[in-house]
Amino acid sequence: MTTYFRPNIDAMTGYVPGEQPKFDTPIIKLNTNENPYPPSPAAIAVLQQLSGESLRRYPDPYANEFRQAVSAALDIPMDWVIVGNGSDDVLNVIIRACAEPNRNVVYPAPTYVLYRTLTELQPAATIEIPYGDDYQLPIAELIAANGAVTFIASPNSPSGHVVPIDALRQLAAALTGVLVVDEAYVDFAEETALNLVKEFNNVIVTRTLSKGYSLAGLRLGFGIANPTLLSGLFKVKDSYNIDAIACLVGAAAMRDQDYKNLCAAKVKASRAQLAIDLKQLGFHLWDSQTNFLLAQPPKSNAEQIYLSLKERGILVRYFNQADLSDKLRITVGTDEQNQSLIEALLHLV
Amino acid sequence: MTTYFRPNIDAMTGYVPGEQPKFDTPIIKLNTNENPYPPSPAAIAVLQQLSGESLRRYPDPYANEFRQAVSAALDIPMDWVIVGNGSDDVLNVIIRACAEPNRNVVYPAPTYVLYRTLTELQPAATIEIPYGDDYQLPIAELIAANGAVTFIASPNSPSGHVVPIDALRQLAAALTGVLVVDEAYVDFAEETALNLVKEFNNVIVTRTLSKGYSLAGLRLGFGIANPTLLSGLFKVKDSYNIDAIACLVGAAAMRDQDYKNLCAAKVKASRAQLAIDLKQLGFHLWDSQTNFLLAQPPKSNAEQIYLSLKERGILVRYFNQADLSDKLRITVGTDEQNQSLIEALLHLV
Repeated sequence: MTTYFRPNIDAMTGYVPGEQPKFDTPIIKLNTNENPYPPSPAAIAVLQQLSGESLRRYPDPYANEFRQAVSAALDIPMDWVIVGNGSDDVLNVIIRACAEPNRNVVYPAPTYVLYRTLTELQPAATIEIPYGDDYQLPIAELIAANGAVTFIASPNSPSGHVVPIDALRQLAAALTGVLVVDEAYVDFAEETALNLVKEFNNVIVTRTLSKGYSLAGLRLGFGIANPTLLSGLFKVKDSYNIDAIACLVGAAAMRDQDYKNLCAAKVKASRAQLAIDLKQLGFHLWDSQTNFLLAQPPKSNAEQIYLSLKERGILVRYFNQADLSDKLRITVGTDEQNQSLIEALLHLV
Repeated sequence: MTTYFRPNIDAMTGYVPGEQPKFDTPIIKLNTNENPYPPSPAAIAVLQQLSGESLRRYPDPYANEFRQAVSAALDIPMDWVIVGNGSDDVLNVIIRACAEPNRNVVYPAPTYVLYRTLTELQPAATIEIPYGDDYQLPIAELIAANGAVTFIASPNSPSGHVVPIDALRQLAAALTGVLVVDEAYVDFAEETALNLVKEFNNVIVTRTLSKGYSLAGLRLGFGIANPTLLSGLFKVKDSYNIDAIACLVGAAAMRDQDYKNLCAAKVKASRAQLAIDLKQLGFHLWDSQTNFLLAQPPKSNAEQIYLSLKERGILVRYFNQADLSDKLRITVGTDEQNQSLIEALLHLV
């Protein structure tokens, strides 16, 4: 049989995203870590006032209005920001700029599965260094592997833990390649590694508006690094990767830090209560600084619970892979949604 | 000096998109082939009624509502459609799926410059086969080069000509790799190669909403091919490349074929008048089935005219490359805009 594709593409199965049921399906959706609260009213107001003219013309290739909003919110110069069609786009751009055969991609696992998919696409080799059950960063092994790119998700998914800044600093200093600190979940955490971009030429911090800002549907993320590091990434980025709407709506959301912080505070309070309730049901949990909990059911029957919850209209995330098959990743919903989950679980554990 | 990048990235200068002045700059913008008419009122109505909920959640990874609209408009099954963040995204996905060292990318030149940029990024080798001044397809040379991917923009930019379907059929039958017919400008043309996707397993037709549908700012395009060919592309496409807004607004625009055809008819009428006026000024023109004209000024002083027009607030496209340095690419504007251009040119030729 003829193939039109490269051998690495033929060999791939492709990334399988979390289930996204239709909008009219009545469901409690706790599987892909969306924020349970709506986006900033200021962002929605911008959306609903957009004119046809803003869509008729090509967008700003640099999404400068959004960069300005990031600059103001994070107190970082605007030219230290690269904008992506979701932070996935920034991750992809980094891999395309830096990785190839003999320029490896290194990360501790389990973590965000997309790092592997994007590396296989390139292709380049992945070196996955296992986290232990305590999720301590395997720092000596990561340094020894010395990737062209090293990814550290902090807070990490699916474990929810934060890697201490000092460990990241040690890594950044030792690596000769790029260190990516993926802060997709930072809005629910107590600290950020952002200052490392000023200390080290090889550090890039990535962020998304999908979680803290409730804008997963908008596709908007960004990376922060010194302009020299960004210059290589700008060569790879598609010129018009950010549509005109995302630039303007995202800027409004970014300017409304108070609203984002208010929602994050609610999520963190609900996370604490959900953790108490799950522990009472016998679940083993890991400390989380995200908007989800990694939870091991007392009988380790994670897949069965996932399926039973789904039948009851509650979607949580089950990863069919060896190091996670006895655990579930549960997004923190509203208190009401979390209560429905706990009631359903009463019959299942 | 340390580099963090792959050698091909370091060697690249990066794609330079057409100038995109700020929206509040008073300018007649005839440089990047936007449609002069606003998007469909039905599409704007959808935009202005969007809820925060549609942004809070992740979008449909397949953009199925948009695919359904394409399916209905073009009478093609929905699973023959892949959706991209602009057709540039689809072109990029094709190259990533098919090209690498010893799997070359072939196209006649001059054409859309992004083919080269995307191939250099991969990297793979490009084989550029010159069009003559008559823009006849160099079919024997294209067949002999037998790329893993062959790109034919039809209608072509910057020449505006359409490649006859029979020539494309001959190519498709002879090539062992993928033939991409890039129909970005098809809405202003008299024929389409769409039926070739049913005749040949190796043909993909790409389209955009940036030109005919006046939605350059939305970033939405698509590819049409048999599902087996698309299966390899779906492995490469980012899961959430299409935001929720683009899916819904684009679907509304696609359903409003009457409006798109009405605007295209106006553009075609203006194109005919603009061609008459430019010829009267002594310009040499090539027949165009697009919303732009390739125009060679009588004294071949294209760069000087470009700069002088820019001073007068009229932007046209000048390509600083050997095979185009004596020509300008002029987007067809409204009749009023075209008249302003002609009046400005009176002083310059």
